[in-house]
Amino acid sequence: MSTQLQSPVESVTDMVEGLARAARAARAAQRQLAQLDAPAKEHALKLAAEALRGAEAEILAANALDMANGAANGLTPALLDRLKLTPERLAGVADAVAQVAALADPVGQVIDEAVRPNGMVLQRVRVPVGVIGIIYESRPNVTADAAALCVRSGNATILRGGTEAVHSNRAIHAALVRGLTQGGVPADAVQLMPTQDRAAVGAMLAAAGLIDMIVPRGGKSLVARVQADARVPVLAHLDGINHTFVHAAADAAMARAIALNAKMRRTGICGAMETLLIDATYPDPHGLVEPLIDAGCELRGDARACAIDPRIMAATDDDWDTEYLEAILAVAVVDGLDEALAHIAAHASGHTDAIVTDDQAVADRFLGEVDSAIVMHNASSQFADGGEFGLGAEIGIATGRLHARGPVALEGLTTYKWLVRGSGQVRP
Amino acid sequence: MSTQLQSPVESVTDMVEGLARAARAARAAQRQLAQLDAPAKEHALKLAAEALRGAEAEILAANALDMANGAANGLTPALLDRLKLTPERLAGVADAVAQVAALADPVGQVIDEAVRPNGMVLQRVRVPVGVIGIIYESRPNVTADAAALCVRSGNATILRGGTEAVHSNRAIHAALVRGLTQGGVPADAVQLMPTQDRAAVGAMLAAAGLIDMIVPRGGKSLVARVQADARVPVLAHLDGINHTFVHAAADAAMARAIALNAKMRRTGICGAMETLLIDATYPDPHGLVEPLIDAGCELRGDARACAIDPRIMAATDDDWDTEYLEAILAVAVVDGLDEALAHIAAHASGHTDAIVTDDQAVADRFLGEVDSAIVMHNASSQFADGGEFGLGAEIGIATGRLHARGPVALEGLTTYKWLVRGSGQVRP
Repeated sequence: MSTQLQSPVESVTDMVEGLARAARAARAAQRQLAQLDAPAKEHALKLAAEALRGAEAEILAANALDMANGAANGLTPALLDRLKLTPERLAGVADAVAQVAALADPVGQVIDEAVRPNGMVLQRVRVPVGVIGIIYESRPNVTADAAALCVRSGNATILRGGTEAVHSNRAIHAALVRGLTQGGVPADAVQLMPTQDRAAVGAMLAAAGLIDMIVPRGGKSLVARVQADARVPVLAHLDGINHTFVHAAADAAMARAIALNAKMRRTGICGAMETLLIDATYPDPHGLVEPLIDAGCELRGDARACAIDPRIMAATDDDWDTEYLEAILAVAVVDGLDEALAHIAAHASGHTDAIVTDDQAVADRFLGEVDSAIVMHNASSQFADGGEFGLGAEIGIATGRLHARGPVALEGLTTYKWLVRGSGQVRP
Repeated sequence: MSTQLQSPVESVTDMVEGLARAARAARAAQRQLAQLDAPAKEHALKLAAEALRGAEAEILAANALDMANGAANGLTPALLDRLKLTPERLAGVADAVAQVAALADPVGQVIDEAVRPNGMVLQRVRVPVGVIGIIYESRPNVTADAAALCVRSGNATILRGGTEAVHSNRAIHAALVRGLTQGGVPADAVQLMPTQDRAAVGAMLAAAGLIDMIVPRGGKSLVARVQADARVPVLAHLDGINHTFVHAAADAAMARAIALNAKMRRTGICGAMETLLIDATYPDPHGLVEPLIDAGCELRGDARACAIDPRIMAATDDDWDTEYLEAILAVAVVDGLDEALAHIAAHASGHTDAIVTDDQAVADRFLGEVDSAIVMHNASSQFADGGEFGLGAEIGIATGRLHARGPVALEGLTTYKWLVRGSGQVRP
């Protein structure tokens, strides 16, 4: 490992204290940031995008150092590709920041208001969540994306990127802060954890009251660790074990197209279908599975599914609870809507589940009874995405039940407070 | 301790497994409950209220047993009073359940909707949170109140009441379930933890994924333990360290009335003022503190506050961070709005903070910059209450930043899901 990757050895106590200092500085900066109006935040983010473009040479040089270290440390080609920045990719990072700058500002929005019989006027008004921790892996673009979303919604952020991207992240962070401070955003509103020690993540996860919310962005092991250890609320999804149920009354051409798209358009995204449920009385099950097999998808079925096509291999119990994220699909034949609902209730991860049917009453029951963040009728689960939902950039997708569910964009980075305007009312 | 209070000794493992079974049964029951429409839930809750009225004799007998045990165990008169049920109090409990039955149903409400360019129709629709744990102390009415709010909002609930109220809670729970099941609510939707072992609370707090949210209702030590140990999201407030800032431009009569009411109307509620901040240039500070002193309130001030009246004693550092919940008030003199904001930022617990001023610009800054669940202008902080806010019965007041803040009523017991209605859309 290159000496540049060494951090000064810190004790865990030092780390916890350092994080507490950083978080308090972030809180103070957030209070200033919260007073900036929408045009001021937009302007500052445009300056940040410009600063990223202006720092191309130093960011690419830093990235080259990370790439060299990564290669020396034996990172896989896939990891190196995630880590790599090119002039085009960096321009894309800057463009994304500029696009976040232009998003509508949720802060200050009045959710509802009421006048009480005693004349007090009540409003619920959106305000930033506060201090948001982002814990992520090798992609250095997250540094800019996440910071931009937090700033746009008036939040301070503490970023903790992957060790392998440390130089890239520092260079991106430095450029961002240069632009943001020119626009009046306090520097402490966007902080990059200085240490690369893994214990730093532990300190963030334990920082209840100092950090208001943590968003992990990365692979399953990162998310699992964050969810298991955090004392701070976490916005995340661990799995996207998404089902598509092709009901007896589905249009066959539509069902074929949706099943193929839901699985094969991109197999590696969290909205990809992982289990296909076929109604036992659906007239053309072979026509449904054949395009998938032809497209190179491996199918693993229960006994009745295996009878549809000899190329379907037998599933094991684990298959019903597996997020493949590749060209593998579990297939079960179920007896009607109730069995489909029971299978989904038992195995879905609460991300995105879909039904294909022309029977409106069946669709309504499915939409009503499936308890996932996103429930779809006659559409591909690959649409489970903030951009596709019209939300602009998303900070992530949440499968927890509180605060925000499904694609989380700027609104999910806000909370509300109650404003009460009186004229001297006292309570009898 | 009476033998009736003994529970069979259970190992912690048994307890954890027992809770997991109970929570899974609650989840299954919740899925059935979620399918009941608003009139059905209203009807079931009215039957529950009737069942409570019909079970008066057995509930009062059970309560008499708790009272006798409590007296034998040396409970304080205050605790015994909280524990005690009378025919009038029990009628009040039943009435409260009937009132919750009549509240508007948040479930199914469409938060927003959009049609995407590809024709997909998106809706965010309110749905129940799921399984809610309620951990409470001696007041047996919480058994009925909390259960009613959960049922009304389509949630299953697992109740864990105080050991001293075990017989009362069992009798109330039995009556409730009798009424609810007559109305089609599955019995497992409202469960009372059978064991009185304190480890049962630990099992609930650890039940991430089984219980979706925990609401502690009780004193500070209960809330502190729940907040410290819970792996499940908690909706609660620990402290109500509420400030009222009397600005230089406050109307003197209004300021006097609000300060007196905010502190002395009821000193023991979480919305009571605990710190009075007086602007250094406010013209009549003595007129402000005198009615409080005359009403029997002990005032503890900083040096400038002590100079207002010799009966004000010197505050210690702890006073600025103390929720007295009695006739004691901390008083500080501050130099204008900025110092008041800084004091509040440093010491408020995020519950309810208020300003009294006739200067609209100052009020607007205060409302904008104070980062508490409730921020008031020219009104008494004693209004911090779900009923006063027109929300109907509240499950509690939350000072956390996510999901729900301030008074939490039925809406705070819901979350949302995304419904996507397509016509065969696949993602390009």
